[in-house]
Amino acid sequence: MLVSALLTSVGINSGLCVLFFGLYSILRKQPLNYEVYAPRLLSEGKSNPTSHFNLERLIPSPGWVKNAWNLSEDDLLASSGLDAVVFMRIITFSLKVFLFAGIIGIFVLLPLNCSGDKLDNIDFDNLSNNSLDVFSISNVNDGSKGLWVHFSAVYAVTIFVCCLLYYEYSYISLKRLAYFHSSKPQPHQFTILVRSIPVSSGSSVSDSVDSFFKEFYPSTYLSHVVVHRTSQLRTLIVLESEKQCQGYNVGSVVELVGRGHGTKSDAKKLYRRIRHLRSDPRDVKSHRSCCFGLCGRKVDLVDQYGKRLENLEENVRLEQSGVSFTGKEVRAAFVSFKSRYGAAVAFHLPQSINPTHWITEQAPEPHDVYWPLFSSSFMQRWISKLVVIVACILLTILFLIPVLLVQGLANLNQLELWFPFLKSILTITVVSQVVTGYLPNLILLLFLKSVPPIMEFLSSIQGYISHSDIDKSACTKVLWFTIWNIFFATIFSGSALSQLNIFLEPKNITSKLAVAVPAQASFFIAYVVTSGWTSTSSELFRVIPLFLSLIRRPFAGDPDDELEVPAMEYHKDIPRILFFGLLGITYFFLAPLILPFLLVYFCLGYIIFRNQFINVYGPRYETAGKFWPTAHNSMIFSLVLMHAIAVGIFTLKKLSLASSLVVPLPILTLLFNEYCRKRFLPIFIAYSAESLVKRDRQDESDPAMPEFYDKLVAAYQDPALMPIHYSSDTNSITTPLINNNARV
Amino acid sequence: MLVSALLTSVGINSGLCVLFFGLYSILRKQPLNYEVYAPRLLSEGKSNPTSHFNLERLIPSPGWVKNAWNLSEDDLLASSGLDAVVFMRIITFSLKVFLFAGIIGIFVLLPLNCSGDKLDNIDFDNLSNNSLDVFSISNVNDGSKGLWVHFSAVYAVTIFVCCLLYYEYSYISLKRLAYFHSSKPQPHQFTILVRSIPVSSGSSVSDSVDSFFKEFYPSTYLSHVVVHRTSQLRTLIVLESEKQCQGYNVGSVVELVGRGHGTKSDAKKLYRRIRHLRSDPRDVKSHRSCCFGLCGRKVDLVDQYGKRLENLEENVRLEQSGVSFTGKEVRAAFVSFKSRYGAAVAFHLPQSINPTHWITEQAPEPHDVYWPLFSSSFMQRWISKLVVIVACILLTILFLIPVLLVQGLANLNQLELWFPFLKSILTITVVSQVVTGYLPNLILLLFLKSVPPIMEFLSSIQGYISHSDIDKSACTKVLWFTIWNIFFATIFSGSALSQLNIFLEPKNITSKLAVAVPAQASFFIAYVVTSGWTSTSSELFRVIPLFLSLIRRPFAGDPDDELEVPAMEYHKDIPRILFFGLLGITYFFLAPLILPFLLVYFCLGYIIFRNQFINVYGPRYETAGKFWPTAHNSMIFSLVLMHAIAVGIFTLKKLSLASSLVVPLPILTLLFNEYCRKRFLPIFIAYSAESLVKRDRQDESDPAMPEFYDKLVAAYQDPALMPIHYSSDTNSITTPLINNNARV
Repeated sequence: MLVSALLTSVGINSGLCVLFFGLYSILRKQPLNYEVYAPRLLSEGKSNPTSHFNLERLIPSPGWVKNAWNLSEDDLLASSGLDAVVFMRIITFSLKVFLFAGIIGIFVLLPLNCSGDKLDNIDFDNLSNNSLDVFSISNVNDGSKGLWVHFSAVYAVTIFVCCLLYYEYSYISLKRLAYFHSSKPQPHQFTILVRSIPVSSGSSVSDSVDSFFKEFYPSTYLSHVVVHRTSQLRTLIVLESEKQCQGYNVGSVVELVGRGHGTKSDAKKLYRRIRHLRSDPRDVKSHRSCCFGLCGRKVDLVDQYGKRLENLEENVRLEQSGVSFTGKEVRAAFVSFKSRYGAAVAFHLPQSINPTHWITEQAPEPHDVYWPLFSSSFMQRWISKLVVIVACILLTILFLIPVLLVQGLANLNQLELWFPFLKSILTITVVSQVVTGYLPNLILLLFLKSVPPIMEFLSSIQGYISHSDIDKSACTKVLWFTIWNIFFATIFSGSALSQLNIFLEPKNITSKLAVAVPAQASFFIAYVVTSGWTSTSSELFRVIPLFLSLIRRPFAGDPDDELEVPAMEYHKDIPRILFFGLLGITYFFLAPLILPFLLVYFCLGYIIFRNQFINVYGPRYETAGKFWPTAHNSMIFSLVLMHAIAVGIFTLKKLSLASSLVVPLPILTLLFNEYCRKRFLPIFIAYSAESLVKRDRQDESDPAMPEFYDKLVAAYQDPALMPIHYSSDTNSITTPLINNNARV
Repeated sequence: MLVSALLTSVGINSGLCVLFFGLYSILRKQPLNYEVYAPRLLSEGKSNPTSHFNLERLIPSPGWVKNAWNLSEDDLLASSGLDAVVFMRIITFSLKVFLFAGIIGIFVLLPLNCSGDKLDNIDFDNLSNNSLDVFSISNVNDGSKGLWVHFSAVYAVTIFVCCLLYYEYSYISLKRLAYFHSSKPQPHQFTILVRSIPVSSGSSVSDSVDSFFKEFYPSTYLSHVVVHRTSQLRTLIVLESEKQCQGYNVGSVVELVGRGHGTKSDAKKLYRRIRHLRSDPRDVKSHRSCCFGLCGRKVDLVDQYGKRLENLEENVRLEQSGVSFTGKEVRAAFVSFKSRYGAAVAFHLPQSINPTHWITEQAPEPHDVYWPLFSSSFMQRWISKLVVIVACILLTILFLIPVLLVQGLANLNQLELWFPFLKSILTITVVSQVVTGYLPNLILLLFLKSVPPIMEFLSSIQGYISHSDIDKSACTKVLWFTIWNIFFATIFSGSALSQLNIFLEPKNITSKLAVAVPAQASFFIAYVVTSGWTSTSSELFRVIPLFLSLIRRPFAGDPDDELEVPAMEYHKDIPRILFFGLLGITYFFLAPLILPFLLVYFCLGYIIFRNQFINVYGPRYETAGKFWPTAHNSMIFSLVLMHAIAVGIFTLKKLSLASSLVVPLPILTLLFNEYCRKRFLPIFIAYSAESLVKRDRQDESDPAMPEFYDKLVAAYQDPALMPIHYSSDTNSITTPLINNNARV
C-alpha cells in the first residue's frame, strides 16, 4: 500500500468522522431525537422534551465534548457503576500504553526503519509515493545494529505495560473493595444459589432445602425461594395476552413482564401505560385510529382495555398458582442468610458428601437473574457446557468457510447469472467497482455483526444464571473469535484448517509469524482507520437506533412506551477495544506508523464513550469490575504474541543473539501474569472473611436491617410468578411494586 | 527376540524367585533376622526373639503365604491405615483388569495374530524358534478383517477399565468418608496452617495471629502455635551432642530428636537407651570395649554419660529459650479451632483483602509435619516451586544424557585404557560378555535407583509441609519420570531432544507411536519378567536391609537401638506398579503375550506386599487414600495413550474406518475422567460441611473432649523446641512423653 492510498483513506474517514460529529452535535439538540441520544437523561427526567425552536439548535456545538471531558471518575462511578469505570480505564490504559509506545515508535524506530534500504530508499521528494513498508521493520537491513534499538523497545514496552497492568489491577481491585465496603446491604450479598438439590421421595424441594440448611447452618440460615420452571408460563402469558388483546399494546407490555428482564422497570412501564390510558383517552383513541384507521372500529377503548386486562390477569393468576403448587419445581433454590459472612461460608464450603449435590454459587443481583433456560441438574449443565464449548470452537475455526462461500456467490458473474436485469447496471465501471470492492466486505461485516449475539446466545445456554455472567463469558468468546478470525485469518490468509495446521506445528510458529505478520502491517493500519474510527463515530451517532426511531416515529403515539434506557453491550465493545490493543502491541515495533492512528482511535473512544455513559447507557447490572481480568489476560496474550513475533523477526533478520535474548521475556511475562492471578484475581472471585465480617458489623447497628431482611425473603421471586393486579389499583404507581417486594 | 530367549529369561527369573522365596521362608524364621523381616511384629512385641533351635527353622514353609492371603481388608485398614488399603487395591485393580484383558488377549487376539502371515508363518513344530513378533499384531495382514476383533477388544477393555475405575473411585471415597466418620478426634482435623502472616511493626507474629482470629473467628478460635526457625537449633543440637559425647551413642540418639521425625518414637528410643544403660552397665562397658577396645579407656560410663547428658540438656535448653524469645519466629502458625467445622470454614474462606496474606492450608498430622526448610513467605514458596518444577522437567528430559555418557565410558576399551591391569581378565569371553552386557544396565539401574530420593528431595524444597504431601508429590514426579525415561526413551530410543521433537509435532504422534511401540513389544515382555518379577521378590527378601543388618550385626550390642519400624515408601512402589499397568494397557492388544507375565507379577505383588504390611512396614502417616487420584490419572493416561497407538496402528494396517472409529474413545475417556474429577476428587481434597457437622455433633457428648482440647493446644510444638529432661527422671518411661504433650 502506498502512503497516498493511506492518506486517501485517512481523509475519507476523517471526513466521515467530522460529518458524524457535526450531525450529532445538531441532531442531539432536536427534542425528537432525545430518545435516541439522551434516553438516560430523559428517563431520569433531567432532559425535558421541549418544542421551543431557536436557532442555536441548528448550529453544531462542542458542549457535549466539554461535558464528557469534565466527567470525573467518581461521577461516572456514581452514575454508571464500577463496570463503566473499568470500561473507561481500559481505554485510558490503552491510551497510556500507546502514548509511551508512540513516542518510542515515532521518534526512535520510525527514523531507523526509514534509514534502512532493504526494500527501497525513502523518496523524500515525494513522500506520498513511498510504499508503507518503507516505514516498517522490513526495510531495516539484515543483521543491522539498529535492530538492537527495536530489541530494547520490545523490552521497554513490555516492562512499561506490565508495570501499568500491575498498577491497574491493584487500582481496580481497591476500587472493587471500596465499592463493596460502601455499598448498601443488597440481596445478592446475602444469598447463594444452590443447585442439584437431592430430593427424597415424598418431600418437596422446598422441604429438602429447609431441612438441610436448618440442620447445617442453623445460626445463619434465613429463608429460601425455590426456582420454578416458568418458561411454559412465560409462553402462556404472552400467548394469552396476545389472544386477549389483539391489536392492543397491552400484549407486548405484559410480554415484557413475562420476559423477566428488569421487573421493576417493566412493571413501571406497564403501569405508566395504564395511567396514560386513563388520563388521556383521546390519545389512545387517536393512536388506535392511526393504526387501524382502515378498520374504523371506534369503541371505548379504556373500558374494553380494563375488562380484558382483568381477564388476562385472572388467567395468569390461575396459571401461576398451577405452577406454584403442581410440582414444576426446579431442583434449585436461592438461599438467603442473615449475614454476608454466613452466605460466604455456605458458598465456599463443599456441602454434601456427594460433590455433585448441593452445588453452591454466588447469587446474582435479583434483576440480573436470567430466568429462562434455568437448568438445574449437574449432568445437564455439564453436558450443555461441553456442547457450547465445542460449538464455540467450531464456530471460531470454521466461521470463514461460509463467509468465503457467500462472498464467492456474490461476485459479478454470479450476480449477472441470477439477476440478468442487473447486467446493464453492472457494466458501469463505478458500480462494478463498488460491487466487487464493497460487497464482500459488507457480507463479512454482516456476518461479524451477528457474532456477539450468537456468542451471547451460546453463553446463555451454557448454564450461566445471570445476564452479567452471560455477557462476561460472551465477551471472552467474542474476543478470541475476533483474534482468530481477523488477526490470524488475515495474517495466514488461508483456509481455517491450514491455519489450524500452523498451530499444530508449534516449532515453526515463530518463523511463520515473523514472515506473515509484517506483511499485513499496511492492511491493519488501514483497518484501524476505517473500522476503528468509523465504528466509534457511528457509536456516537447511533446509526441503527436513529434509523429505527425514524421509522417508528409515525406510529408511536406514546412517548413513555419507547423509553427503555439501553444498556451498554460490554461483550460487543470490550473485545473491539482489546483487539485494537492487540494490534497496537504486536505492531508497534514492526510498523510504528500504526500508533498515531490508534491514539486517535482511543482518544475518540475516550470522549465518545464517556458521552454515551452520561446520555445514553444506563447500568443493567453491576459486576463490580469483573471485566478487568479479561482485559488483563488479553493484554498478556498480546505481549506474548508480540514476543513470539520478535523472536521470529530477529531470527529472520539474522540477529540470533537478540532473538535468544527475547526468549526470557514471554516466560517472565507469563510468570508476572501468574503472580497477578494469585495476587489480585481472588479479589474478583469472592470477598474475603475480613471484608465480610467488617461489613456485617457495620450493619449490626443499622436500624433499616429488619426491613431489609423482609425484602430479602422475597427478592428472588421469579417475575413470571409475581402477582399482577394492576387492573384493580391504577391510581398509584408505587403500590404494586411494594406489594411485589413484600410478598413472602 | 526368539521365544527360546524369552523362555530362558523366564526360566532364570523364575529360578531367582523360587530361590528368594525359599531363602526368605528359612531366613525369616531365624531370630537374628527378625529385625529385618519382622521389625513391625518385634516392635509391637508380638514376636519375641528366642534362641531355641529346632529343625523346623531350617525347612522352608509357606505359612507366611497363608497369613498374607488370609489378611482381610478390615484388618489391613486397622493395622496399616487406609493408604495401605489403597495400595493393595491398586494391585487388585490391576489384577482384575489384566485378568479380563488376559482372557481376551490370550484366547481371542493371540490365535488371530498367529494366524496372520505378514511377518512369518508360525512354526508349530518348533515353537521356541518362532520370533515373538509372530504373536503380535505386526503379524496380522494389512486390511485384514481380523483387525476388527482388535478394535472391539480396545473398546471392550476401555469400557471395562472405566467401569472398574468408577467403582474403585467410589469405593475408596466411601472408605475415606467412613474412615473420617469413625476416626477419633485428631489434632489435624481441628487445625489449619496459616502462612504469610502480615506483622505490623512492634508486634509479634503471635499477637498478630491472636488478634486476627479473635476478631474474625471469635466463636470457634481456640489457640495457635507460631512456627520458629529451628534449622539452626537442629544443627546446634547435633553438633553440641557430638562434641559432648564423642564416642558415645548419645550423640546419634539426640540427633534423632533433633531431626524431627516422629517425636514420640524417638523420645521413646532415647529413653530406652538410658534405661538400658542403667539397668545393664555390663553391657555398656563391654559394648564400649568392643568398639574402642584398642584405646582401652575403662571408666564408669554410666556416670560420665549422665553428667554429659545433663550438660547437653542445659545447652539445648539455653538455645531453645533463645529461639523462643529472640524473634526467630517464622510468619506461619498452626491455628486450632474448637470444632472441625470451624477449622474448615477458616480453611475455605479467603482470609484477607490481600490474597497473598493469611494463606490457609489444612494442617497435617502433628508427627507428619516436615519441620526443616519451613519457608513462609508467599514469594519464596512460589519461586522455589517454580524452580523445582523446572528442575524436575529438566531432570526428566535430560536424565538419559549423563547415563549414556557414563555408559559410554564404561565400555571395554575405556576400562582397558584406565585399568591396564584388567586387560588379561577382560579378554576372557565370559567376563567381557558380563561387562558389556551387564555394566551398562547396572549403571542405568543405579541411576534409576537414585531417582525417588532425588524427587523426594525436590518435593521437600517445593514448600510442602508434611511428609505425606512430599511423598505424594514425589510419587507423581517419579511416575512421569518413569513413563518418560523407560517407556518413551525405549520406544523412540533417540536423544532426549529428538524425543521432545516428536511431541512438538502433535500431528505425527500417532503414526510415530504406531511404528515404534509394537517394535519394542518383546523388550517390554522381557522387562516385565526381569525387572518386575525380580523387584518384587527382592522386596520380599529385603536384600539391602538384610545386607546392612549383616554388616552392622557385629557392632550392634543394643537390640533396641536398631528397632525403627520402616515405613512403606509409596513414592517408590506406586509408580512402579502403575508403570506396569501402563505397559499392560498399551500392549494388551499389540502383544497379548505380555499379559500372563504381568498377571504373575501382580499376583506376586499381591502376596508379597500384604506380607510386608503384616511383618515389616508400619504406617508413618495417614493420608486417608489420597494416593488413589494419582493411580486413577495414570490409568486414564494409559488408556488415552493406548487409543493413540490404536489410531496409528489401524491407519498403518490400512483399516482407516477402524482408526476413525477409535477417535471418539479418547474423547469419551477424558470426559469420563473429567466427570470423575467432579464427582469424586473434591472428597479427597476436603470434607464436606455435612460430614464435619455430623462428626462435630458426635463429639459434643464425648466426655474426653476437654482433655483433647488441652492436648490440641500443644500438639504442634516443634520437636526441636520440646524440653529435654530425661537426665533427671530415668525411672519411668511415660513421664517425659506426657510432659511434652501437656506443655502449652
